[in-house]
Amino acid sequence: MEKIRLGIFGYGNLGRGVELAAAANPDMKLAAVFSRRPASAVKLITAGVPVVPSAEAAAWADRIDVLIICGGSATDLPRQTPELAALFNVVDSFDTHARIPEHFAHVDAATRKAGTIGIISVGWDPGMFSLNRLYANCILPNGSDYTFWGRGVSQGHSDAIRRIPGVRDARQYTVPVQAAMDAVRSGANPQLTTRQKHTRECYVVAEEGADKAAIERAIVTMPNYFADYDTTVTFISQEELDREHKGIPHGGFVIRTGSTGVQGETKHVIEYSLKLGSNPEFTSSVLCAYARAAHRLAAKGECGARTVFDIAPALLSPLSGEEIRAHML
Amino acid sequence: MEKIRLGIFGYGNLGRGVELAAAANPDMKLAAVFSRRPASAVKLITAGVPVVPSAEAAAWADRIDVLIICGGSATDLPRQTPELAALFNVVDSFDTHARIPEHFAHVDAATRKAGTIGIISVGWDPGMFSLNRLYANCILPNGSDYTFWGRGVSQGHSDAIRRIPGVRDARQYTVPVQAAMDAVRSGANPQLTTRQKHTRECYVVAEEGADKAAIERAIVTMPNYFADYDTTVTFISQEELDREHKGIPHGGFVIRTGSTGVQGETKHVIEYSLKLGSNPEFTSSVLCAYARAAHRLAAKGECGARTVFDIAPALLSPLSGEEIRAHML
Repeated sequence: MEKIRLGIFGYGNLGRGVELAAAANPDMKLAAVFSRRPASAVKLITAGVPVVPSAEAAAWADRIDVLIICGGSATDLPRQTPELAALFNVVDSFDTHARIPEHFAHVDAATRKAGTIGIISVGWDPGMFSLNRLYANCILPNGSDYTFWGRGVSQGHSDAIRRIPGVRDARQYTVPVQAAMDAVRSGANPQLTTRQKHTRECYVVAEEGADKAAIERAIVTMPNYFADYDTTVTFISQEELDREHKGIPHGGFVIRTGSTGVQGETKHVIEYSLKLGSNPEFTSSVLCAYARAAHRLAAKGECGARTVFDIAPALLSPLSGEEIRAHML
Repeated sequence: MEKIRLGIFGYGNLGRGVELAAAANPDMKLAAVFSRRPASAVKLITAGVPVVPSAEAAAWADRIDVLIICGGSATDLPRQTPELAALFNVVDSFDTHARIPEHFAHVDAATRKAGTIGIISVGWDPGMFSLNRLYANCILPNGSDYTFWGRGVSQGHSDAIRRIPGVRDARQYTVPVQAAMDAVRSGANPQLTTRQKHTRECYVVAEEGADKAAIERAIVTMPNYFADYDTTVTFISQEELDREHKGIPHGGFVIRTGSTGVQGETKHVIEYSLKLGSNPEFTSSVLCAYARAAHRLAAKGECGARTVFDIAPALLSPLSGEEIRAHML
């Protein structure tokens, strides 16, 4: 069998995760990594894979089946995914929920013009969490949805703390409130405020001589990021931060409670949860599975933008229809 | 919008569940219920829906968009689904896992000949549990799968107890072992025996003067059903059985633990669980969602057998692609 030739565009945590995930899938091979940095500054894990300047990607159009774009959602992907879709079948992890319709439209236009496939917003939220929201809503039309995130590191919140004067380094964990999850699972159908659903734990390394009380105040009162939450701030040393908080764990819970029966007298709870040792390594594992689907759709002559909602699950598997029916159904 | 005209073939617990689920979906209407029993013996919940002798189903081919076949997997569905697929788009809940490939082949042949769609083995296991096994395997190729069932009523095991001489009535619950689930979730990757995964709780009503010790012995030593499990038998009155055990709850857990990283050093846990107030009402809710997909595939001119693996999630939703991308992704 011919292996699926993957390209990685952007080699940060996510790109590195895709490199690892590609190696875990025997039907895939990594053909090239595209980076803005000079090739000498990019050290791959895999031997023998070229690092190519991102400006030269076009020359690789015939040598790559699916390009996984590993840029950021704020400024990279809105530009990169439509541009690169003119040359490649692409998959991205665009995660700015509010701007998904706009991004979808741009990628749809580009892919239809080029005759390529573009699967956007792949990962776990958006991604696997979205799928579980959709499935659960279709099964139980009468019900309520709840999503809890964590315990896990929020990069955005960690960055926000690091921008406060006097802060040298920081790590922020989003933590779901156990009592809120228990109330949801009981079928009590609670209306939960932001504060009732999650707490925020901040581990902060202060600069020598910094005003810790001022830092703590700046954090807990920060609008949008922390003011609406019960936030705890713990000052620790850089050594402790590096030792105890170096991972990027995350996860969460999607719960739908609903009812059936003549008068809604029968209660059901559908729950999906993830406990991830590494957010980028898991996200990139999802990206690789959807790259397989992109390759198959392109091979069938399809084009256009897709999301996880549009992809039949069988397209994600390296096994045949016969095999999955016999062993997984 | 024209409503999807559903038919129900077989009016037991599952058929009644489909009737309730159809009423919960505003884009569906129940057109007819087909039963082997005389119409006078079948009392529907919905007013104004005809009860038609099953032998006369053919006359309804033009008045039904999708027929949901609610027979049993042992003898009904292997015969009914291929036969009825000659006339209707069909959905069934065939759940004899080992015979799915054979059933699929029969339904595929019938639907391709007739130009209809047949979605088989829809429900929660097979069904939603299968989907979660597939998704998790595609995302984490290096890992282990675990499925736990319960706490819930096993109809087959309850029936087996009722066949023992001296037993008047019985209800059997399959119960997952908490310690085993905890070990799985910890990522310890345990090898679990049948006995370590589930226990079986039996509530038995004995006939007047029956030998209870003999009944208990017959239960706990019964091959296939109970001998491989830690089984408890509790004798209760018919009144208590009727009062405390009249529901048909079920549920369970699909867990995949897996690893990523350079040497598998990063651990992840994916878990899907269901806590169902009524097994048949939930199964029939899943059947209705897939009936919507069957209708759409047929409207596109597709034919052949399908399983949940082949159905793009968006086809299950009454909402448009734009709506689900904007609100659920």
